[in-house]
Amino acid sequence: VTLRAKASAGRLDGKMREKTLTMDTLNPQVKAVEYAVRGPIVLKAGEIERYLEEGGTKPFSEVIKANIGDAHAMGQQPITFLRQVVALCTFPELMDSPSFPEDAKWRARRILQGCGGHSLGSYSASPGVECIRKDIAAYIEQRDEGVPSDWENIYLTTGASDGIMTILRLLVSGKDSSRTGVMIPIPQYPLYSAAISEMDAVQVNYYLDEDNCWALDINELHRAYQAAKQHCQPRVICIINPGNPTGQVQSKKCIEEVLHFAYEENLFVMSDEVYQDNVYAPDCQFHSFKKVLYEMGPEYFSSVELVSFHSTSKGYTGECGFRGGYMEVINMDPEVKAQLVKLLSVRLCPPLAGQAAMDVIVNPPQPEEHTFKQFHQEKSSVLGALAEKAKLTEQILNSVPGIKCNPVQGSMYAFPRIFIPPKAVEEAKALGMQPDMLYCLRLLEETGICVVPGSGFGQKDRTYHFRMTILPSIEKLNVLLGKVRDFHISFLKEYSGLEWDEI
Amino acid sequence: VTLRAKASAGRLDGKMREKTLTMDTLNPQVKAVEYAVRGPIVLKAGEIERYLEEGGTKPFSEVIKANIGDAHAMGQQPITFLRQVVALCTFPELMDSPSFPEDAKWRARRILQGCGGHSLGSYSASPGVECIRKDIAAYIEQRDEGVPSDWENIYLTTGASDGIMTILRLLVSGKDSSRTGVMIPIPQYPLYSAAISEMDAVQVNYYLDEDNCWALDINELHRAYQAAKQHCQPRVICIINPGNPTGQVQSKKCIEEVLHFAYEENLFVMSDEVYQDNVYAPDCQFHSFKKVLYEMGPEYFSSVELVSFHSTSKGYTGECGFRGGYMEVINMDPEVKAQLVKLLSVRLCPPLAGQAAMDVIVNPPQPEEHTFKQFHQEKSSVLGALAEKAKLTEQILNSVPGIKCNPVQGSMYAFPRIFIPPKAVEEAKALGMQPDMLYCLRLLEETGICVVPGSGFGQKDRTYHFRMTILPSIEKLNVLLGKVRDFHISFLKEYSGLEWDEI
Repeated sequence: VTLRAKASAGRLDGKMREKTLTMDTLNPQVKAVEYAVRGPIVLKAGEIERYLEEGGTKPFSEVIKANIGDAHAMGQQPITFLRQVVALCTFPELMDSPSFPEDAKWRARRILQGCGGHSLGSYSASPGVECIRKDIAAYIEQRDEGVPSDWENIYLTTGASDGIMTILRLLVSGKDSSRTGVMIPIPQYPLYSAAISEMDAVQVNYYLDEDNCWALDINELHRAYQAAKQHCQPRVICIINPGNPTGQVQSKKCIEEVLHFAYEENLFVMSDEVYQDNVYAPDCQFHSFKKVLYEMGPEYFSSVELVSFHSTSKGYTGECGFRGGYMEVINMDPEVKAQLVKLLSVRLCPPLAGQAAMDVIVNPPQPEEHTFKQFHQEKSSVLGALAEKAKLTEQILNSVPGIKCNPVQGSMYAFPRIFIPPKAVEEAKALGMQPDMLYCLRLLEETGICVVPGSGFGQKDRTYHFRMTILPSIEKLNVLLGKVRDFHISFLKEYSGLEWDEI
Repeated sequence: VTLRAKASAGRLDGKMREKTLTMDTLNPQVKAVEYAVRGPIVLKAGEIERYLEEGGTKPFSEVIKANIGDAHAMGQQPITFLRQVVALCTFPELMDSPSFPEDAKWRARRILQGCGGHSLGSYSASPGVECIRKDIAAYIEQRDEGVPSDWENIYLTTGASDGIMTILRLLVSGKDSSRTGVMIPIPQYPLYSAAISEMDAVQVNYYLDEDNCWALDINELHRAYQAAKQHCQPRVICIINPGNPTGQVQSKKCIEEVLHFAYEENLFVMSDEVYQDNVYAPDCQFHSFKKVLYEMGPEYFSSVELVSFHSTSKGYTGECGFRGGYMEVINMDPEVKAQLVKLLSVRLCPPLAGQAAMDVIVNPPQPEEHTFKQFHQEKSSVLGALAEKAKLTEQILNSVPGIKCNPVQGSMYAFPRIFIPPKAVEEAKALGMQPDMLYCLRLLEETGICVVPGSGFGQKDRTYHFRMTILPSIEKLNVLLGKVRDFHISFLKEYSGLEWDEI
């Protein structure tokens, strides 16, 4: 009571307590972070959804969220076998149930044997459960046709994002006198720019070649590097292959060029390969950076520092909610590796259910197992539908005047170029927003379709895009693309009378 | 091939490629991080375990890991009901199984209805699944006897560590001209010191009073604050209640004093309450910071910025591997809150299985439900055993000459003071290690018991401690404590002949 009286008295004397944490005192690096995939447009979509739920009316009955690679939210079914293994690990009493296949049971038993107290409720070692790390290494060796993989180079992560942030944390110090440059593709997945802002590194953009199916051009890498050297020390290059948001699949030759460049310029290589199972174009093939490095010979394979990231969230499983993933770390200085383990240990460990899910992905049913047929059917069905939707999306978008879409060779996204009339560009500028933000807001409000403006990923000046996922069902995707077409045509009409903005 | 030739040629000319990331170029803030709970002593324990597995011999047959609060790894059984709900969410086909109780099924159905596509494989909103946030708010209201809780103030996290790091990230900028001071108890859980190092904040120590059962003394807070103001801007105070590693439970009066202090000095309050269900001493009771703040009156309740953290990893569930947790954020500036949501969105969302586990903890079986009896038995059995082990640990340790242990009122740890003879202190110094590190290494090598030196948590100069968990089974704990006693006596004998180090 005395304290209370004292406080009231103090404040009544005019000394109002101010907030400690305000926009003025907030860490400015947090303020600088942008993350368009869940940005303002998605908040707006949520508002509209609630409005519809509460009985409000709009020219549409539902919001279609094509903003994020969230497969199950768009109706994709889980792979039965994966869920069986994770359920068995979660509730081992199910081992006695005849309705669970033996193939799933032995995997679950093996995972649990690797867990403290044989429970998914124990912490694992910070780099992950040992037998899962070994399964991942074996999987990589098989994927890369014999290129050796050491399980002690494998670190489980909480989704790929966590791994990417951790590796960047090692490389970037906010206090560097010569600041660290991080080379990223433009367009990019905005985790990269967000991490760079948060860590106060220097973002070094290299532009992908839209006119050449978003290919990575080695001359552009040289240009970006030389320009950056004027004001920072570029130390790391990030590549996303297959591309996000751009959907291209890199050629082997291109990967060789990138690795040679990294070798020559002493760059650390971060290769985001979470879409490695998502390749649809018949003339494209996924080449891992590691395998290409190996094939370039021992001078390269024994020296270039390379981290590759993978995830349970994409591929044919789409298990985003499990937050599973791993990274393979090649040629890292052993002392630095000890520091990496120390840093990981502060966060204790990645979620065990996500680790178990990752294990199924790298150790799926084999042809001689009873579960193979169903597993294979489910996997093919998901990947087949994605390939069909990739094609459909490209075709319909390219049929619209003023939209141009590169082939969706892989990943889960189309990133079409949209031509926005100068009058609309002016209007957006007057509103203080990017022209493609205006476009996407109007698209959302008029059709209920939620896509992300290209400005959230980066793009060449005076070009405009949006990113949409190809995840809705064929039926829904057809509806969505039809609505985009109609909207685009009416948008052009509305702002016509002036010439379109150049290029 | 041309590239390869070019590279070989270049390198043969003497230009050896250096590593990009070395101990010299590593982010110095990462280098500064220490995390004793998984530090050198635990690595050593792992080595010894492997040695034993490979048939090596030691004076003991197994390593007992009492270094980390990892309940299931020490044999604690999961709460059946929690695992049933998570398994149902993971594999909804089990909804048809008669062997799962209806009480679990309706909870799982409700959680899945809150998930995109009714799947645990979807991303949730970044702050978590809405119905789980609502359940948490209802739980807090009940726990705090009616003090209102707004579900929009609840944010699910990836374990409590993730939430603590995120909130500190908002408060700390590495580039501040007036650097941010973070007040933490000493001894502390080393996540705090690790986060402070990683973010380049200033660690402001306030010492808990060992002679008074590790109570928090308000005069010491004032001392620490005034001293820190000379060289930094203290902006946040962290409290761990019940204490880790110290096991004390704070009195209501003490919490009032802390909150009044924070109110007067405009400090942001971070209250680590992950052991709120782990109170064993009959004369102690858990008081939430939020409830105490409420009872102090509206001047306080409407102004002090307070975040409270909770977790699935501790309590009676011990579900560390699920990486579940939440934080309740009170009085945060609304604009800052939007920044918090943005920052969380970059990491997408906490693992859904952990969110589901958290939901069961805040929404457990009620007396009228069929599952209540078994749930209640399991819960009481875990908490009863912990209370017994807390008592046993204190008693046996205090029976050893040269060991003094405060009552383990709560949490899962004893943090006994150990008297180390001057000769041993000198020997440790000669080896360049802390005396209690020497002690713990010897204990590990001679008995197989793995505990963490007090120096990893912080302690007053010239006092030495170790932290041990009370998690082993009663039988094992008896063996462990007997071995500690024998080791301690022989250690004292070995280094006797000189007086013991002062205090």
